[in-house]
Amino acid sequence: MRFKKDQFIVEPHAKVNLHRISPKFNQEVDKDALKELTKKNLARIRELQEDLYAEGKQSLLVVFQAMDGGGKDGSIETLGKAINPQGCHVASFKKPTEIELKHDFLWRVHPHAPAKGMISIFNRSHYEDVLVARVRKLAPEKTIKQRYDRINDFEAQLADNGTRILKFFLHISKEEQLERFHDRLEDPKKHWKISKYDYEERQLWDDYQRAYATAMSKCSTEEAPWFVIPANSKTLRDAVISQIVVDTLESMKIQAPQPSVDIAVIRKQYAAEAAKLKH
Amino acid sequence: MRFKKDQFIVEPHAKVNLHRISPKFNQEVDKDALKELTKKNLARIRELQEDLYAEGKQSLLVVFQAMDGGGKDGSIETLGKAINPQGCHVASFKKPTEIELKHDFLWRVHPHAPAKGMISIFNRSHYEDVLVARVRKLAPEKTIKQRYDRINDFEAQLADNGTRILKFFLHISKEEQLERFHDRLEDPKKHWKISKYDYEERQLWDDYQRAYATAMSKCSTEEAPWFVIPANSKTLRDAVISQIVVDTLESMKIQAPQPSVDIAVIRKQYAAEAAKLKH
Repeated sequence: MRFKKDQFIVEPHAKVNLHRISPKFNQEVDKDALKELTKKNLARIRELQEDLYAEGKQSLLVVFQAMDGGGKDGSIETLGKAINPQGCHVASFKKPTEIELKHDFLWRVHPHAPAKGMISIFNRSHYEDVLVARVRKLAPEKTIKQRYDRINDFEAQLADNGTRILKFFLHISKEEQLERFHDRLEDPKKHWKISKYDYEERQLWDDYQRAYATAMSKCSTEEAPWFVIPANSKTLRDAVISQIVVDTLESMKIQAPQPSVDIAVIRKQYAAEAAKLKH
Repeated sequence: MRFKKDQFIVEPHAKVNLHRISPKFNQEVDKDALKELTKKNLARIRELQEDLYAEGKQSLLVVFQAMDGGGKDGSIETLGKAINPQGCHVASFKKPTEIELKHDFLWRVHPHAPAKGMISIFNRSHYEDVLVARVRKLAPEKTIKQRYDRINDFEAQLADNGTRILKFFLHISKEEQLERFHDRLEDPKKHWKISKYDYEERQLWDDYQRAYATAMSKCSTEEAPWFVIPANSKTLRDAVISQIVVDTLESMKIQAPQPSVDIAVIRKQYAAEAAKLKH
């Protein structure tokens, strides 16, 4: 079992049509093999994160976008099993505050860009400003159009500074969303997650799918590609995402940092110390 | 196998003498049983963190302080195995920057206090300003003395806002530190971690132990207790810390949040939706 990044990537300038991409993976896959693959990938991510942190020269930004119930939280939880929180920052972008609205739309996002050596994970992101903003007409058409360029500029700026960017759209079907909403209803522990907006947003499903397609068509670049992840199956989703993260980290050619001290000198110091302690 | 918080706690106003507390745990313990205990505790922490996040009314702050090699990184890594990074923020406090030095010593710390529902972990903390600052005489004696009060005020402020605070001093022996330094020497992958300051600071061991004892004596309070963790054994350390975190979270009486919607209404909506999809 093995996935390749290219199976799910949105090529730069490609026109995305989500109707033509199945939220299921149309190939026979064995659930146990997928789980095994995810486990292996997570173990590898743990090692690679340590290397990334040690090197301290590059960073990784992982963006999750999806319709409600699409599995953003679940995907972050899965990655979280591998990732050391000391080297990771998760930022959740909710409805902008009054102060945030008084600034440009990237103002609240930039502070959460990953520092060198770090991984940042975005639960929703600056893309909301061309998604909900477009569907709900929160900004004029012209402003939305400008934002695609501003997003590309912003991501290029991060890339120039050594940040690799992965953007995952978790693609589920309308039927699958309803099933997940039902699951929340059946589990009283999940009732707090239910919002009256869930249903409202669902009525705008097609508008959102179009807004996603446009955003991915306009903002998938060499340095910051979009991926459409078939996400009806959580098992498959986790396997694919973890594989893309592994492949990306491996492609970054992370180097072991040079020691900042003369190891021979330190060795002598410690030998003297050990002798002293014996007295 | 079971530990109680009180075995390791510094009682308010108690005078700490680190010479009298062994960095080993002077009781027969079985390594496998300890590992089993840690595993069980971590699984429980995962559940409790989810509840804390869902409730969204309280928060937890975990502070780690130790001599170099004491196991701060390792302890955070262990907790990280349980903790969902979406509900956790780790802040590492290094040498203050020029801008930070132009502010009071709590200025750089306050922004990292946990939001409601969240866990913050501090790798080093505001205590450095009464530890290294005291030993290295970076501030006048009078200023250091004031800082103990300011720390207590600050922590009371967080506690008033629903934050529970746990402060762990990872207590290792001077011999154990040297062994860990040696381990770093033997593993080329760890050479980057070796700093010339390691050895310099080690020369000030007794001064640091006194500064720690004073800080813990002055700043262990009901709402923000210090714990002296016997940390020569990593296995024991992880078991004890995870146990104290579990006990603390359980004592917080986290409540399931009330749904923000009328579940019966939502149920009807979804049934209508399901009927619509079938057509």
